[in-house]
Amino acid sequence: MELITWVVPAAGVAAILFALYLARDVLSRDTGTPEMEAVGGMIREGADAFVRRQYTTIGALALVGAVVIGLVIGFVETRDVADVPDLAGAPIGIMTAIAFLVGAICSMASGIIGMLVSVRSNVRTASAARRSLVEAVQVAMRGGAVSGFLVVALSLLGVWGIFTAYEGLIGDVTVAEAPFLIVGFGFGASFVALFAQLGGGIYTKAADVGADLVGKVEAGIPEDDPRNAGVIADLVGDNVGDCAGRGADLFESTAAENIGAMILGVAAFVIADAAGWPNPEAWIFFPLVVRAFGLLATIVAMFFIRGSETENPMNILNRGYWVTTILSVGGLGLTTFVMMDTAGTISNGLPVWVWFFFAGIVGLATSVVFVYITQYYTAGSYRPVREIAEASKTGPATNIISGTAVGFETTAVTAITIGVALIASHWLGSQAGLVNAAGHDVGGIFGTAVATMGMLMTTAYILAMDTFGPITDNAGGVAEFSRAEAKTREITDRLDAVGNTTKALTKGYAIASASLAAFLLFSAYIDKVNLILGNQIANGTRAAGTLLEAVNLADVSVFVAGLIGAMLVYFFSSLAIRAVGVTAQSIIVEVRRQFREMPGIMDYSQRPDYARVVDITTRAALRQMVAPGLVAVATPIAVGVLLGHEAVAGMLMVGTIAGVLLATVLNNGGGAWDNAKKYIEAGNLTDDAGNVLGKGTDAHAAAVVGDTVGDPFKDTAGPSLHVLVKLLATITLVLAPLFIR
Amino acid sequence: MELITWVVPAAGVAAILFALYLARDVLSRDTGTPEMEAVGGMIREGADAFVRRQYTTIGALALVGAVVIGLVIGFVETRDVADVPDLAGAPIGIMTAIAFLVGAICSMASGIIGMLVSVRSNVRTASAARRSLVEAVQVAMRGGAVSGFLVVALSLLGVWGIFTAYEGLIGDVTVAEAPFLIVGFGFGASFVALFAQLGGGIYTKAADVGADLVGKVEAGIPEDDPRNAGVIADLVGDNVGDCAGRGADLFESTAAENIGAMILGVAAFVIADAAGWPNPEAWIFFPLVVRAFGLLATIVAMFFIRGSETENPMNILNRGYWVTTILSVGGLGLTTFVMMDTAGTISNGLPVWVWFFFAGIVGLATSVVFVYITQYYTAGSYRPVREIAEASKTGPATNIISGTAVGFETTAVTAITIGVALIASHWLGSQAGLVNAAGHDVGGIFGTAVATMGMLMTTAYILAMDTFGPITDNAGGVAEFSRAEAKTREITDRLDAVGNTTKALTKGYAIASASLAAFLLFSAYIDKVNLILGNQIANGTRAAGTLLEAVNLADVSVFVAGLIGAMLVYFFSSLAIRAVGVTAQSIIVEVRRQFREMPGIMDYSQRPDYARVVDITTRAALRQMVAPGLVAVATPIAVGVLLGHEAVAGMLMVGTIAGVLLATVLNNGGGAWDNAKKYIEAGNLTDDAGNVLGKGTDAHAAAVVGDTVGDPFKDTAGPSLHVLVKLLATITLVLAPLFIR
Repeated sequence: MELITWVVPAAGVAAILFALYLARDVLSRDTGTPEMEAVGGMIREGADAFVRRQYTTIGALALVGAVVIGLVIGFVETRDVADVPDLAGAPIGIMTAIAFLVGAICSMASGIIGMLVSVRSNVRTASAARRSLVEAVQVAMRGGAVSGFLVVALSLLGVWGIFTAYEGLIGDVTVAEAPFLIVGFGFGASFVALFAQLGGGIYTKAADVGADLVGKVEAGIPEDDPRNAGVIADLVGDNVGDCAGRGADLFESTAAENIGAMILGVAAFVIADAAGWPNPEAWIFFPLVVRAFGLLATIVAMFFIRGSETENPMNILNRGYWVTTILSVGGLGLTTFVMMDTAGTISNGLPVWVWFFFAGIVGLATSVVFVYITQYYTAGSYRPVREIAEASKTGPATNIISGTAVGFETTAVTAITIGVALIASHWLGSQAGLVNAAGHDVGGIFGTAVATMGMLMTTAYILAMDTFGPITDNAGGVAEFSRAEAKTREITDRLDAVGNTTKALTKGYAIASASLAAFLLFSAYIDKVNLILGNQIANGTRAAGTLLEAVNLADVSVFVAGLIGAMLVYFFSSLAIRAVGVTAQSIIVEVRRQFREMPGIMDYSQRPDYARVVDITTRAALRQMVAPGLVAVATPIAVGVLLGHEAVAGMLMVGTIAGVLLATVLNNGGGAWDNAKKYIEAGNLTDDAGNVLGKGTDAHAAAVVGDTVGDPFKDTAGPSLHVLVKLLATITLVLAPLFIR
Repeated sequence: MELITWVVPAAGVAAILFALYLARDVLSRDTGTPEMEAVGGMIREGADAFVRRQYTTIGALALVGAVVIGLVIGFVETRDVADVPDLAGAPIGIMTAIAFLVGAICSMASGIIGMLVSVRSNVRTASAARRSLVEAVQVAMRGGAVSGFLVVALSLLGVWGIFTAYEGLIGDVTVAEAPFLIVGFGFGASFVALFAQLGGGIYTKAADVGADLVGKVEAGIPEDDPRNAGVIADLVGDNVGDCAGRGADLFESTAAENIGAMILGVAAFVIADAAGWPNPEAWIFFPLVVRAFGLLATIVAMFFIRGSETENPMNILNRGYWVTTILSVGGLGLTTFVMMDTAGTISNGLPVWVWFFFAGIVGLATSVVFVYITQYYTAGSYRPVREIAEASKTGPATNIISGTAVGFETTAVTAITIGVALIASHWLGSQAGLVNAAGHDVGGIFGTAVATMGMLMTTAYILAMDTFGPITDNAGGVAEFSRAEAKTREITDRLDAVGNTTKALTKGYAIASASLAAFLLFSAYIDKVNLILGNQIANGTRAAGTLLEAVNLADVSVFVAGLIGAMLVYFFSSLAIRAVGVTAQSIIVEVRRQFREMPGIMDYSQRPDYARVVDITTRAALRQMVAPGLVAVATPIAVGVLLGHEAVAGMLMVGTIAGVLLATVLNNGGGAWDNAKKYIEAGNLTDDAGNVLGKGTDAHAAAVVGDTVGDPFKDTAGPSLHVLVKLLATITLVLAPLFIR
């Protein structure tokens, strides 16, 4: 192993230590007034109940999943259809099951720890807001960064560890074979992410809707009243969706993209090996090292989160983001220069590494573009949100129509940006002159892989900003509950508004990363299928010339599979949206019961049973996630088995396109509705005579309808689609042998 | 020409004569009370204004389009990239332009005449309703059938005429070349359909929304009050969207599918010719003959539209539909038996024709399945509509969420039905053993073509049922306006409810036909591209072995083009939805002006200027259709030119999948919202205590919001997407030479 690859475990361990340091720093801070402590305690209690129930279930599911996967792979992956024939049968089944479990465990661990810190940072942020805006930003951002660092570091160390274990400890495995053996890790991460995001997404919006309906509408008590046990579930829900859910989502992205890029790196390795370039295996290790530098850049950036009390807190966060980005450019340059050592080979006028460096820059730039696109479409200062606010004047119907039009519109820049990024990075890669023995250029696809890795370098920072969202949201709730002084609340309100933006940004980033991940994994799938087909041809069990050269849309089976893939996206979303309604019902029933059987609640003499509502909601959400989860897992398997390995690839790609676009519509539409309501509440909307149309007007009521509609779109269905898209990719990758015909 | 092909002109002329007979029959009927006549006159006046303005504009656009297409084709289609090299350059440019114009003119003619009869049938239906339900059904259905017969007959005669002209009159053109020369006809039909459907869709919903806002909300006069000049625009709008718009939509479907099937028939012709089967050219003429039998079946079915006064009018219509379907099965059997004469060749145990007969049956069955799927999802008696009505109890937000979930859900059966139909008909066709000289099976794709033709056999009847919708809707309006007696209104209400169902059915049918059409045209596009590439290879201007064997989704350009295609579907819908809002504003301004400047309107002493509102709305709608129209035409051209002929095929297919599914969501979601409102208005919703929640309740108000949201979805964006999907196909087919690289 080259010296530079030691940066992988080093950065991984450093990031974990840094996360522990941040956690200790946050936890050592004061928890504010006794009232704040009390509220914080309730949220913590609820969150603990959630974590216990949710992760017990997911853990059990993952265990069952690992056994099933192990058996299926061990049974199906005979010597004839194995990617690594020497390990065919039981060994590869066991290795895949172990990789699956390790992936699942790492994902769960980062989710659990992130949640635990997040629900302890909220009250400390509220307390810090009594003193200083900058301090509050720092506390919230450090609390969020614990999640960010853990997710990325555990995904990095997990992939590195299982790769090293499989390559180093098992005699027969070459460095070129090992990447294929670790795809189970990505599948494990996908599996956990699916349920974490679905369960979390259903939970958070069901709690929101259920608490409102039973408290405000039925019992006639104010929104966010502590007597309503559902309100704590709502506050817990923010963490569940945006911290645990998005964390699992991006854990999956980073792990799956990393493995996909390593598989694509094998083709470059073969070329480098044949050309006699030094360290050919560096082309396989490259993704790990790039990500390690991204982590280091993020650690440094945490020290730049500072500013003045009067400045827009978004600027403070942006400062750190730009530091991460700029340092990442440096890390990218260093990595490409050192690792892509081609003994001075020049291609199309430039050293090979420079072409890939540029490809990586495309990825970093894409991430920046997405951050700003999302801002344009969901922040109140621009046309889209204003348009929706204006439409609210003529009632809820025009609000919904306008928001739908905006949501649909956002697909344009999203698709064009992803398209340009793919074509540009592919072109840059193809200029590097990596042509294999069969005369195929493999640099183009590897260029898209490098771009994806470039984009992923900032993941830890993006995730920290994301978790900043629920922490500040909760801090606002804590300040409200504890009747903190106006100055404190003014600060938490400002932070909450920024948190809404950062949550939206992360979704945009997650969409872009999901689409790149899917394209990468799709390419890796084709490599894997051809490895298997090649082995079969070599064994004589298959006719020569039957490699998978193309996924042909003109083939009826591929077209139909694509149609099914695109349909799955809608059908899955339909189930997810419907699940919110059903789960909300279970909260309503329980809170009604508490009001009835615990009469002391109303006069504050009895404390509502918060944990019980949380537990019931969690259980209902977990039950409701079964149907969409099953559909998500079963459909690609059914299509693959019925229509074969080429058709399932068509399903994957068309499903990805459909999923990415529908997620864009749901996330951005939902975000824009949310902020149109906030725009009106902030007094920015006026009638023809110039009178402000604020809270309590019909226009505001119309905007509230839009906001409520957008909630399950942007927090349940949309984010779950990110996971679905990647799950389609990892399932097909792992189960490829099952689909070969 | 074989004897049986004479059935084509015979059936076409017979259908036109029959349409004239029906028109005379309807127009000879009484126009009711003087009040009815007065309202009918206003609608007619408005419709005439619309027809004049809209078709002047579309005609001018079509003329420009023809010239541009002629020049582009004449310039681009040099000998090197021509499908018929002997006609390269100016001749093929002129022939394409003429075909385009003929297609445009036939489409416009059927739209105009259909509209003229439709707006004269309404008042006669209202009058007949004073006497008898059955008579009213007959009048409305006969009025609607004028459209149905004209659309299908003109499309049949147009394709047949231009084909015969090009093949018979121009010496060098063989029967195998002629189908490629007439694709301009399909493009002309697409072009007109795009603007007819977009303009009509925008117009109808803008009139609806605008009239309501300015009348009910601002002026405080009841909905549908004759003093509101916008109300007549609204009644005109029903005809514009559902009669003229859907007519152009299905004109395009039938024409484009017919041409696509003929192009695919060329491959079968080559095989039949080589095998020495009698009448090989029958494989090319087959689609025309099948459609001719469909027309004849529909003529017979018109005599079965009878029943009792007490029966559900839907049953009366269904009777005719089943007669059409059963007679079509007979026609299909006869045609396949006579035309697919393979001198007794048996393939896989059955005569060749039997396999294709079965494939045609699959198409007919698909059309039946779609009729019932739509009924399930949009009729009040089933779960989806009830679910939305129940959700209305908790307000507009839950109504919208529930309707969205239902809309998303409907994609599942739609996609599965289309998928099963494609795979089944492809499999059946592949059993027929049509293998060409290169060893490729061409029977499979031809099987899907036959299925599509089978589905199209019932188009005239379906369109008659569709136009039944606006006629009965208008009849209801006329009865209301003229204060007809309760019995009459009770009958028109029943007919109106049935009309809502038939309108929804037609959309489901149009979606299924659009997706089959697109797949057919896509296959035809590949044939055409390979014809050109083959000529280039033969000329030596292209390397051997570079035929378009696959549209490879794993290719970055194809993937990106697919992404852009799917995005286009959303972006186009966004523009269409937004256009409704803008156009509604122009109605509001004009009606306000009339109220202000014509004070006599309010006390009935002055007649509002209905024609002016219609004209202004028409002009605004036409202006607003420019942006989506331009985007629809420009995007495939830009993608084709930038990314090449393979990528644009990817765009076409993924765009088709995305378009079909989004149209399904919009049409069925909108239909379900509409009927949820009607379900509540009919007193079917009760609260927990069993009290009816009808008109005037909060639940009803919530359902009205859903209905309003659904309006531009189901009547503007959704139907326009059908046209978009087919336009993508015809544009790529016509401009293929431009995209070859």
